[in-house]
Amino acid sequence: MALFGKLDKIKSSVIKQRRTVFFLSDRTGITAETLGHSLLTQFDGIEWVKISIPFLDEIGKIKAAIDQINQVAVQEGVRPLVFSTLLKPEVLAQVRQANCCVYDFFAMFMGPIEQELNQSFSRIAGRSHGLQHHLAYFKRINAINYVLAHDDGVSPKNFAEADIVLIGVSRTGKTPTCLYLAMQYGIAAANYPLTQEDMGLMRLPKVLESVQDKLFGLTLSATQLHLIRQERRPNSEYASLAQCQHEIQWQQSLFKLMNIPYLNTTAISIEEISAIILDQRGLKRQLYGL
Amino acid sequence: MALFGKLDKIKSSVIKQRRTVFFLSDRTGITAETLGHSLLTQFDGIEWVKISIPFLDEIGKIKAAIDQINQVAVQEGVRPLVFSTLLKPEVLAQVRQANCCVYDFFAMFMGPIEQELNQSFSRIAGRSHGLQHHLAYFKRINAINYVLAHDDGVSPKNFAEADIVLIGVSRTGKTPTCLYLAMQYGIAAANYPLTQEDMGLMRLPKVLESVQDKLFGLTLSATQLHLIRQERRPNSEYASLAQCQHEIQWQQSLFKLMNIPYLNTTAISIEEISAIILDQRGLKRQLYGL
Repeated sequence: MALFGKLDKIKSSVIKQRRTVFFLSDRTGITAETLGHSLLTQFDGIEWVKISIPFLDEIGKIKAAIDQINQVAVQEGVRPLVFSTLLKPEVLAQVRQANCCVYDFFAMFMGPIEQELNQSFSRIAGRSHGLQHHLAYFKRINAINYVLAHDDGVSPKNFAEADIVLIGVSRTGKTPTCLYLAMQYGIAAANYPLTQEDMGLMRLPKVLESVQDKLFGLTLSATQLHLIRQERRPNSEYASLAQCQHEIQWQQSLFKLMNIPYLNTTAISIEEISAIILDQRGLKRQLYGL
Repeated sequence: MALFGKLDKIKSSVIKQRRTVFFLSDRTGITAETLGHSLLTQFDGIEWVKISIPFLDEIGKIKAAIDQINQVAVQEGVRPLVFSTLLKPEVLAQVRQANCCVYDFFAMFMGPIEQELNQSFSRIAGRSHGLQHHLAYFKRINAINYVLAHDDGVSPKNFAEADIVLIGVSRTGKTPTCLYLAMQYGIAAANYPLTQEDMGLMRLPKVLESVQDKLFGLTLSATQLHLIRQERRPNSEYASLAQCQHEIQWQQSLFKLMNIPYLNTTAISIEEISAIILDQRGLKRQLYGL
């Protein structure tokens, strides 16, 4: 909690203005949110109030959304931004009448793409997540099941079937990264924790020797590891800065000695860690999201 | 495997042309892939060969990417599509010289947004996943840990802390949905399997009674459940169509009787299931991706 307080303080000291942004979609809104987020983080000093309105497909709901946009414009004295993946031209036209700036993804890109492909786009909502993705669905579920069955060093005898095996000391982000690799890319990712027992020796745990070419190390700054472990077991030996420094130094020496590629994840997200691992190990994406 | 063969056959019967698409990015490429995917699934009858080139930030790598684009254009006799989130104008300018159609995300949107905000964008790669997202990182990790500690009916005494509790018979997609809810939205999602033991009775398992307002049912067509279970335990009683029909009928009756909201997930993705659950239960997003 001390950490959260500190972060909030840092945040409030650099915020110069506050703007509201809406994400409007006929379906999940995930595309509008992802794209809007990528654009907005390019602007400094603005605190964004984010409002998602997915499944915007009934007259009543559309009217309520437009009323809400107009109200925000009046309250804040500045018009809200609207990121849209609305497929129905008549709904989009109504939204454009509201007191806001509309950035519509389909309107922006579809004209030029239709021209290049010499074909009109279908305007059917939810196609990127539809029935035709059964094959991808199975790949994804199988990959997630693989991760859950090989988390935290379980069943290392099956590691030969893994696309990648992440290693690192406790709380270096192995499990979330494996889950993301499975969910987003359909990659079968196992992970194995390096523990106190391993630390006496400057060699790999025996069970990892046969899969050395699949290993990838995760490390981070000792300070960051200390903060993360403090959240979990406050003021324990396990969470102490000295212990974290010791473990991090040891594992980095091991990675170097054994020629295992590794990544310092201190300042980066699970998405970035995952994409960097794919790139560095030349792993083939089995999915492109869904 | 029979299923995969069938799907491939259906797929090949409707494909009219094949086009190559590149996703180019200074960083992970996830935004470019998301955008491209949403746009491309709007066009029927085209098989897309997708090539991601993330972390495009060195002269040698840029040159190799451009060569690859030009080669594809020659081989296929039609220029490839390129979705880009390149931040450096000089890299983008080089890519535009290649034999391709470039759809650049920042070029399309940044002008109008800069004008509205009266501020230039920072052109610093990776900002959407950077240091400032520590707070979101912790929320996300905590939510993922909650899911893993409360999967498949583990520790139901803690379900009071859940934002949502998914229920359904085996293989209805509870675990992947919980993981997605945590990863994408920071939602603490638990799940509880309905089993043979529960099926004699037309009431909720005792441990769920106190959290009835958090319950959400997942169901699907008996045929689909049969296919999924066949992958797992081929030709078992558990996977038989009759057994699947019986379980699905029973759980749907229970959901109706107990007034538990539920969703038929047969033709939709984990993303859609998750977004519909949020929407129907009015759950607040704790994150907007990262």
